[in-house]
Formats: sequence, structure tokens, C-alpha cells
Amino acid sequence: MRPDKRKDNEMRPVTIRRRFLETPSGSVLITAGKTTVLCSASVADELPKWMPKDSAKGWLTAEYRMLPGSTSPRTPRSGTPDGRCTEIQRLIGRSLRAVIDLEKLGPKTVFIDCDVLQADGGTRTLSITGAYVALVDAVNSLQLPESPIFDAAAAVSVGIVGGVPVLDLPYNEDSQAQVDMNLVMTGSGKFIEIQGTGEDAAFSEEELAQLLALGKQGIKELLSLQKNV
Amino acid sequence: MRPDKRKDNEMRPVTIRRRFLETPSGSVLITAGKTTVLCSASVADELPKWMPKDSAKGWLTAEYRMLPGSTSPRTPRSGTPDGRCTEIQRLIGRSLRAVIDLEKLGPKTVFIDCDVLQADGGTRTLSITGAYVALVDAVNSLQLPESPIFDAAAAVSVGIVGGVPVLDLPYNEDSQAQVDMNLVMTGSGKFIEIQGTGEDAAFSEEELAQLLALGKQGIKELLSLQKNV
Amino acid sequence: MRPDKRKDNEMRPVTIRRRFLETPSGSVLITAGKTTVLCSASVADELPKWMPKDSAKGWLTAEYRMLPGSTSPRTPRSGTPDGRCTEIQRLIGRSLRAVIDLEKLGPKTVFIDCDVLQADGGTRTLSITGAYVALVDAVNSLQLPESPIFDAAAAVSVGIVGGVPVLDLPYNEDSQAQVDMNLVMTGSGKFIEIQGTGEDAAFSEEELAQLLALGKQGIKELLSLQKNV
Amino acid sequence: MRPDKRKDNEMRPVTIRRRFLETPSGSVLITAGKTTVLCSASVADELPKWMPKDSAKGWLTAEYRMLPGSTSPRTPRSGTPDGRCTEIQRLIGRSLRAVIDLEKLGPKTVFIDCDVLQADGGTRTLSITGAYVALVDAVNSLQLPESPIFDAAAAVSVGIVGGVPVLDLPYNEDSQAQVDMNLVMTGSGKFIEIQGTGEDAAFSEEELAQLLALGKQGIKELLSLQKNV
Amino acid sequence: MRPDKRKDNEMRPVTIRRRFLETPSGSVLITAGKTTVLCSASVADELPKWMPKDSAKGWLTAEYRMLPGSTSPRTPRSGTPDGRCTEIQRLIGRSLRAVIDLEKLGPKTVFIDCDVLQADGGTRTLSITGAYVALVDAVNSLQLPESPIFDAAAAVSVGIVGGVPVLDLPYNEDSQAQVDMNLVMTGSGKFIEIQGTGEDAAFSEEELAQLLALGKQGIKELLSLQKNV
Amino acid sequence: MRPDKRKDNEMRPVTIRRRFLETPSGSVLITAGKTTVLCSASVADELPKWMPKDSAKGWLTAEYRMLPGSTSPRTPRSGTPDGRCTEIQRLIGRSLRAVIDLEKLGPKTVFIDCDVLQADGGTRTLSITGAYVALVDAVNSLQLPESPIFDAAAAVSVGIVGGVPVLDLPYNEDSQAQVDMNLVMTGSGKFIEIQGTGEDAAFSEEELAQLLALGKQGIKELLSLQKNV
Repeated sequence: MRPDKRKDNEMRPVTIRRRFLETPSGSVLITAGKTTVLCSASVADELPKWMPKDSAKGWLTAEYRMLPGSTSPRTPRSGTPDGRCTEIQRLIGRSLRAVIDLEKLGPKTVFIDCDVLQADGGTRTLSITGAYVALVDAVNSLQLPESPIFDAAAAVSVGIVGGVPVLDLPYNEDSQAQVDMNLVMTGSGKFIEIQGTGEDAAFSEEELAQLLALGKQGIKELLSLQKNV
Repeated sequence: MRPDKRKDNEMRPVTIRRRFLETPSGSVLITAGKTTVLCSASVADELPKWMPKDSAKGWLTAEYRMLPGSTSPRTPRSGTPDGRCTEIQRLIGRSLRAVIDLEKLGPKTVFIDCDVLQADGGTRTLSITGAYVALVDAVNSLQLPESPIFDAAAAVSVGIVGGVPVLDLPYNEDSQAQVDMNLVMTGSGKFIEIQGTGEDAAFSEEELAQLLALGKQGIKELLSLQKNV
Repeated sequence: MRPDKRKDNEMRPVTIRRRFLETPSGSVLITAGKTTVLCSASVADELPKWMPKDSAKGWLTAEYRMLPGSTSPRTPRSGTPDGRCTEIQRLIGRSLRAVIDLEKLGPKTVFIDCDVLQADGGTRTLSITGAYVALVDAVNSLQLPESPIFDAAAAVSVGIVGGVPVLDLPYNEDSQAQVDMNLVMTGSGKFIEIQGTGEDAAFSEEELAQLLALGKQGIKELLSLQKNV
Repeated sequence: MRPDKRKDNEMRPVTIRRRFLETPSGSVLITAGKTTVLCSASVADELPKWMPKDSAKGWLTAEYRMLPGSTSPRTPRSGTPDGRCTEIQRLIGRSLRAVIDLEKLGPKTVFIDCDVLQADGGTRTLSITGAYVALVDAVNSLQLPESPIFDAAAAVSVGIVGGVPVLDLPYNEDSQAQVDMNLVMTGSGKFIEIQGTGEDAAFSEEELAQLLALGKQGIKELLSLQKNV
Repeated sequence: MRPDKRKDNEMRPVTIRRRFLETPSGSVLITAGKTTVLCSASVADELPKWMPKDSAKGWLTAEYRMLPGSTSPRTPRSGTPDGRCTEIQRLIGRSLRAVIDLEKLGPKTVFIDCDVLQADGGTRTLSITGAYVALVDAVNSLQLPESPIFDAAAAVSVGIVGGVPVLDLPYNEDSQAQVDMNLVMTGSGKFIEIQGTGEDAAFSEEELAQLLALGKQGIKELLSLQKNV
Repeated sequence: MRPDKRKDNEMRPVTIRRRFLETPSGSVLITAGKTTVLCSASVADELPKWMPKDSAKGWLTAEYRMLPGSTSPRTPRSGTPDGRCTEIQRLIGRSLRAVIDLEKLGPKTVFIDCDVLQADGGTRTLSITGAYVALVDAVNSLQLPESPIFDAAAAVSVGIVGGVPVLDLPYNEDSQAQVDMNLVMTGSGKFIEIQGTGEDAAFSEEELAQLLALGKQGIKELLSLQKNV
């Protein structure tokens, strides 16, 4: 039995609140259990400096931070993003760029901001799932002739805890997991990203297969929730 | 007539939502019109490095940031707090330290985090008003024999726009104000802080008196709202 | 009786030495008691990056630092300006911009540098009073058809020490003050800036009136001294 | 046919030169085709600050950098590690910590430094493969009663280029890959880390299986080479 | 004939004003022509972190900066010392450590601060000459049983301009010099430091001999002036 | 007798390996005893920002770093170059600019990177000697009509150890030297740079002459070795 009495293949309840704020063109407050992330998508008529000035393609970039009050005890606010933050925001950016056609977007930059208001495990995968919804709203507000978003994207964490593969780990499971894996998949059932780490114990091919199966099921549920909102 | 049809001495509607998050011991979501600030108060059993290690007194410090999505167009996320941020977080800290007895608090540090989710003028004064409520909740959770908080604190902005003294300026008034003033006052009607600036036009003693009167009235309303929640 | 035997409404003796250095077009060494500030004003034919390139208006910006040897014990030299420094240099800049017409200045930037050589209280207000004189010299050296400076500016500190409102606080009074207030006023007797803080004790309206009266008197003396030099 | 005429499942020739330098207790120069990495392992009788001072366990940490001359055109030398660097050095550290028993190591820190002298794809996986050998040399030099290293570790890159799964991608293939995957495995055939990204094209479960098979074969060859040196 | 009509072996007039400020225990304002440097020496009962805590020896360290107004056009204020600053402050520190016995000083740190108020060539050598006087005053104020200063130190610049070796170069000569050399010598006529650079033209042994002769003469004059004040 | 049994005027054996790497157009691995430096020279069709955009002249700049594993115990990797690094890389740049005609080079930038792989004294002088060879290779690869390099450059360290002037100091001598001097000379026997420091003991003119004689002899040997490779 898991600490919060869920079955091994059971997700925490997820809520997605669209248009939480008025300022960003896409604004989503997403929760999974206690984990709460504010996802904003803003579009600017500018390109990053490293792109050619006359590029016809656009760009999508993401930032991820945890607010100091998101954990107990409080997390100190850090000036520059630390290694973990950097990894996560690069993952969010790659994941969403996998479902948007940057040429159809045109010479614009989409900024995704994922600010974790409350952290209880799974912040990076919940950020991706929520940011996708904010991205859709922001892109729709541009009223482009053809939508540059050609597929959905959602993400979930899986892991092996006490030798048992489980779905959607809260902090108390995550901190004891032997294997930790994050999966990002498209609406059409393909993988965008697989990141599996066995710091405390390497994992076999059979375990890998079990984790992938759990993850696919969880992502399916999230994709269906995204559609409903 | 003001742009949002308020009278010169009329505040925007203010809402205060206590216990917005579970992690910090004090968590308040406060709004005034569109301006939305998340105020967290966390207490740690540690002292800042500059205090003597065996101090019997505690400390209270504050941080203030605007989330990138709080404005349109988006505000770039800055590593270190800029000059404006620094000024504001120092003001929040001073204002709340004026109503708490740090000896009664004991050797602890209270961290106040004010994160602006949506900015439409008055973010620093709304931060103080909301942070006071979060501070009360956090201090109560300590279950000290005697409360170290000996007075209330609330803040409001006043200014002269188009030659007319007005109360509680949203962004479109603030950006055109000739004189801009922030007032912080106690529940017992004394001043904690007066910051008045006339960058576009110096102001006379008579105008100062009018601004102080408007501010006192606004703060009275806020203090009463704080009490009710 | 005050520690240095002054009356409550008595200023420390102030000296202003113009053209202290040859390199900056305005260079003033100003002292009040032991406090000594070197104020330089330099003009460049360039605009800050945030202004439109073809702007017809100019800009004035200020920097404030304390040299390491200005205090005993020595103050460590800090790379980036700390919170206090940032606040002060923003105040100096705002105060002087209040008396200069940036359109008449034309597309130039005036840099004000206030370096505290010796610190004994009142460094920020003395910086403003001295920098105004350096600014006049620098602007005169431009030989513009019409002077962009339309009023004088001077500043003084007041405070409540041991329950008594006093004028022009040296360090040993300042460090014990219950209320600390800085006033910046124009030659025509209007307020540019009021910054009053009661960290140790909030202050009443009556006390505010007393402090304003003391400050107005002190600034009058400074304005007359500025005229004489 | 691949640009360098290798078969799809053929590795580039790999050389491992132990004791390249005398100063670090483990020093390996490893090459795969043109890619050249200098791997150093140094051990210090100290613990990172975040560990308890009286910890009986040790730690292993890794740093990764590309020398400016490792690419043509030259890569500017950056002060702080950028996002990519940070990700890679965290991966190297996790991978090696998976095969070392930090309790048996005792309260010491192993520093792994991977400096890329010449970069032609696969620098992160080659770093892991070479650093493992340097780690073994450094740990052996400690002459501990029982070796804390309980398994081998090696890594390889696989990817899908032009629709075809291939092993060990040089730069000209890597920059055109639709899917890019890095695998780290133990000597006993388990996974330490799987990182697969489909930025240009999501990948199916069947493709995932093909990539894993290629990677397992490549790692087997590397493990056997490590043993021989 | 030199631009300012001096002979090739003639120094600019030098003035040394002791006890310019009251706060640092040694405070010297030194000028050579237009070049003006404020030299402060402060002593603290602490040791740098890299020294053993129970060291019986002390340390002397130096910082050098140019104030923004010291040049025309104004020099931007830089957060961290740039390469040139770093070189100069290391030179000042080494030069003064060569004439002080750090064991006799005891476990204290002497901080030398050289702030250039006005720059017209020769700022680094003038800093050393002035800082030596401030150092003597600061050390005397300690009233140690035996003075740790066992020799004098002074410095001068020489160079080859238009093919001619000259003494004490102002900026307009320095910027055109083919060879630039700084000499630091003791009161007993030995070299502490020789730094000669021929960026525009390498120099022969004969030219080196001429420069050394000029420098020795100039330093002799400075040492005699130091004694007189 | 010296610790490594060399005579006072005897150099350590020096090896120079050209074309060590393929990526930079000049790549040299140079060793003197245990000291090992990787010198790279890369040329870019760009100019530093501080040069006029339409300059017909080029520029040469140098960077110097010690890899963490170059010393035992390991040297922490520092983000920004420290004072010593900065001094050394400025010296390398000046020394090589003294033998290249930047007008004949044309509007290009030569980047010299000296990375110390193993440090046992004399890293800065060995860097110059090796970088000169890399520079020649890089410039030759440009196939300019006329070579901009008009002279050779080599460098050596000399010092006084235990009262005796010696040539080419390894770390165990360097750390005990009373006087430390670095000499850079041209192929035609002129001085580019003399940097002599007597931190522990000032030095007389006679000692200076002895050091210069030793240095000239050592540089002669290096210049002849450079020619041979």
C-alpha cells in the first residue's frame, strides 16, 4: 500500500484551471495532489539573439523556478538557476518544441514560465502538462491562419519504490525511489523524452518495460484531461 | 472622473485569501483590482549571519519579486534583484519589523516572500498589507506564550494625477502621476513610513496634507478588512 | 544637550569647495562636520540604452559609494552596490532630475558621482546638496542657449532622538534615532522628496509636523550657502 | 552508408591512455575518432559543505568543460558552466556514483574532471567511459582494505539519423539526428541512465527497442576495452 | 622638449598631505602634477581566510581603483576590478610587504586603499609612494614595541618616448611611449620590483640601463620628500 | 646543488609537439620537466568590440588557465580568472603582440589559449614559448601574401634561491625564491618584458645583471629549439 493509499498505477487527482491570470496570453494553474504550478505563456515579436535577425522561424523557450514558500522548510531564493532548475527548464522547452511547428509560428518567441507555488513531487512533469495548455491558449490568441501546434504533449513521473514500479510519485516516495523516470509523450502515443536514472540501483530491461507501461497509462489520462478543459 | 470610474477617495475592491498554500505557515493571496500578490511567511530556527550567534532577539526579512508573467509584455526574470526590487523589499521588511517585538519572537528568523503574480499598480503597498496577515498566521502557528505582534500594519498609495490628489493608483494613473506617495501606518493610527516623490513636479505643504488625509482614510479601510479575515 | 553641544535646530558647519578637481566639468568637495563627500558631474554626448536613440531629451543618473576608508573600522569595498547604496543613488538621481529640464538639456547624459570620503551621518543628503552645485557647474560649462536648471535643490536629515526632534544628525545620533527622515526641497520651498521611517517607533502627525518644520529651516540655510559659493 | 563509412552498428575506434599526467591520482586520455577527453580523478580528505561534518560516507562529484580550442570555430571560454555543461557534469557524477559504495569510500571526496580537448560528438558518453578508468586508478591508489567500486560503468550514444538507428554519432550525424539517446550501463548489463530526446521527431516503442539494442552492443565493446587497459 | 617643458630627467612637482582624513589611521593625499591619489591605511585585528587562524604573522593587502570622475571623459564604475586594476593592486601590496616585517606586525591585517581622484599618468607608482607614508602613520598608531617597517619604499615610472628615455610620464607621454617601465625601490637603494614592457618596440640592454638610471634618480627625490613630511 | 641535480645555468629538458590537436589552426603541447601546457591558436574574422568596426588592423588576445588536475592537491576550477590568471594572460598577449604586425594581419582576431595540464613552475614563460609556435602555425594557415610575424619570442624564468641566481625554476625552487624574474625576449636579442619581484628580499644592481645574463642564455636555447621544430 502506498503512503497516500493509492494503487501502484493510480495517479493523484489533477486539476487544471485555465485563464488564472489576465496578463499572460496563456495562464494555467495546475495541481496534482498538493503540487501546484503556475504556468504562463507569453508571446513576443522578437527573436533570441543567437537566431538570424531575418529568420522566418520562431522560437519557444522555458523558465522554471520554485518559489521560496513552495517547500517547508523554505527554499532560499537563488539568483541564477541552479543545475536542477537549468535541467528542468531545458526539458520543458524541448518537450513543447516537439509539438509546435516553429515555421508556422513565424518570427516570434514564446516564453513559458513555470513557477512552482507548492512542491510535493512531480513538479517538472506537471509543469509540462500545464504549460502545454497555456501554450495552446497563447497560440490561439495570435489568430494565425493555421495552428502551429500539431500534437499534444503531457508528462508523468514513474519510479521503483521498495522494489515496486509505481506511477506519479509524491515527494515522500520520490525521495526513497531506487529508480526515477520522467516520460514525455505526444497525443499520438510517441515518446518525446525518456529520462530514467538509477542512482541507488541500476535497473533491468524488464523493469524498464514495466515503467514505460505505467507511464503510458498515466499520460493517456492526462491527455484526456487536457482535452476536456 | 478616473479611468476606472472610481471617486478620488475610493479604493479598488480588495480581497484577502488566507491559507492559500499549505507549505508556508502563513500564506495569503491578496488582490486589489487586477493586482495580485502571493504573500508567504515562513519561520526558521536560525539567525542571519550578521547577528550574534547567541542573540536572544530574532529577525524579520522580506523578499519581493515580480513573476515574469505578471506584466504584459512579459518582464524578463532577473537574477539579482534590481534597484526597485531592493528598495521595495527593504521597505516591506522595515514596515513589518515596526509592529513585531523581536525579543518576544526569540532567536528565529521570519522570512516574508511577496511574489507579484499580476501587476497593475500598488504592488508594494498591497504586499505590505497582505504580508501582515501572513505574518500573523505564521506567528500564531508558533504558539508563543505571548504574541510578539503588538500592532497592525497596512499600506496604501496616493498621488497627484492631473493636478488632483487621488487614492490607490492603478498602473495607468501611476505612470502619469506628478507626485507619488506610499504610506504605511499602524492600527493605532501612527506613521511607520512616508515616501513621497515629486519627480515631475515638486509639491507644496498643502498638497502634502491632502495626500496624507487620503492615505489615512484608505489605510483605515484596509485595517478593518484585515481584521475581518 | 546634543553630544556635540549643538541646539536641536542647529546644523553642523558646512563647507562647499567648488572646482576641487579639474577633470570632471563639475567637481565639489562638500563637508558637514566630519562628513566629507566628493561630488562630480560629467556630461557625455550619449543616452542610456533604454532611451530611444533619436530622443531629443537627455538623462541624469547618479552613483553613490562609500570609500573603504570613510569609516572606522574600514568598510569592505563591494563589487555591486548593496541595497542601501542603490536606494541612495536612486534618490540622488530623482532629486536632481526634479530641477532640470531634460528637453532643454538635449540628448546628453549627466553622470553624478558621489563618493563619500568620510562618513559621519547625513551622507545622502549632503551628497544631494553638493551634487546640485557640481551639476550647475557642469551644465554651465555646456554653454547652452538657455539653462535647463530651473530651480535649486538641497537636502537635510531630521529625526527623533530620545523623544526630541533634531536637525542634521551625525552618526552617533542617527544610530539611536527612533525616527529618521530625509527631506529634499527646491529653492522655491516645495518638496521633492520626503522619506520618513519609524523603525523603532511609529510617529504621530504632530511629530511629523515638527520634523518638517526643522527640515525646512535647515534646507533654507543650505540653499543660501549654495547661492554664496 | 554513413559519412565515415562505418556500418550502422559500428563504433569509432577508441583508445584509452592511462596515467597521462602524474599529478592527479587517476589520469586518462580517451579518444573516439577525433573526440578527445582528458579525465582526471583526484581524492581529497574533505566533504562537501552540504554533508554532515561527521559523515562516515564520502562523495563523488564531476566537472565537465570544453576547452576553447576543442571546436572550430573556437568556443568562447565561459565563466560559469552553461546549461548544457551543468547537465553533463551532473550526468557524469550520477553515473559514477551508481557503481561506487560511498560508505566503503569513507569520508573523502572524489573529484572527476572531464576536459574536452577536441570535440567531434559523443563527448559526454566518452567522458563517462574514460572517467570510470581514472576513478579506478584513483581509488586503487588509496589502498583501502576493500574496494568501494562494485561494478563497471560505460556509456555510448545512439540515435536515429535519416530514419535509421545508428551507433556512436560523430558531430555531423549528431547535428542532423531526429532522435538522440545516451545510455549508461553497468558491467553487469543493467541500466544506470537512459536519456532519449526526440526534438525533431517523436519516436515509437519499436524505435526505442532498436536504439536500446544498438547501445547495449556498443557498451559491451567499451566494457571489454576498459578491462583490457 | 617635453610637452610640459620638463627636462628628460625632471620629475613633476609632488605634494604629500598627511592626515587628510580622520577615519583611517593613515590617510595621505598625494599629487604629482595633476595626478591625485587618496591613500588610506587601516589596520584590523583579523587575518585573511587563507591564513592559519592561529598565525603569529600578519598580512598587508591593497586595493586600487579609479573614481569615475578621475578621467575625462568619465570612466564607468566597474563592479569587479578589471585586469589592469588587479595587476596594480597586487603590485602595491607586494611592494609594501617588501618593507614590513609581518611577524613583528603580529596577527593583524593592514588594508591599503588607493583611490585615484584624478588621473594623469603614473597613478600606480604615485599610489605606492603615497601609501608608504600612510602605512607608516597607521603602523605608528599601533604603538608596537618595535616598528615592523624596516625600510622605505617609493616608485616612479620611466619610459622611452620618441626614442628618448624620460622620467615620470604624464598621460600624453605614456600613451605614446614605445617602452614603459615601473620601478619600485627601497630607501637603501635596492630593487623591489622592475616591470618593463616594450609593446610597440622591444628594447636593448643599453636602453634598459638608461631607464634604470633615470628611475633611480627619481626615486631618490621621492624618498627624500617622504622623509621631510 | 639544485634539488633536481641541474647546474645553476641549466634548463630542464623541453619538448615541443606541433599539431597536437586538429581543430585549432595552431596546436602545440609543450613540456619543460613535468610542466605541461596545451597552447592553441585560433583565428576569427572578427574584431573585439572596443576596436572600430572598419579597422584595417587586427588584434591578438590570450587566455590562460590551470586545469583542476594540473596540481596535487587539485586546484578548484574558478569561474572568473583570478588576479594571477589575469596578469599572466595579459603578459602572454603583450608578448606575442610585440612580434606580430597587426596591420599586416588585417581585420582578424587571433585567440591564444594556454591551458596548463600539469604545473611544476614556469607555466607562464612556457606558455609564451609554446604559444609562439602555435601562433606561427595558425598565421601560416592563413596564407597571407606577407607574414605579419617579424620576429620570434620566447620566455624563461630566473630567480635567486638560497642567495644563488638560477635558471628555470621548478615549483619547489620557485616557492622558496627570494627574487623571481620572468624575461621575454625576441629572436633578435631585445627585451619584450622584464618582470622582477623581490617580495622576500630586495635585489641589488649586480644581482639584476646576473639574472639578466642567465635569462638571455636560457632564451637563446629556447629560440633555437623553436626553430628546429
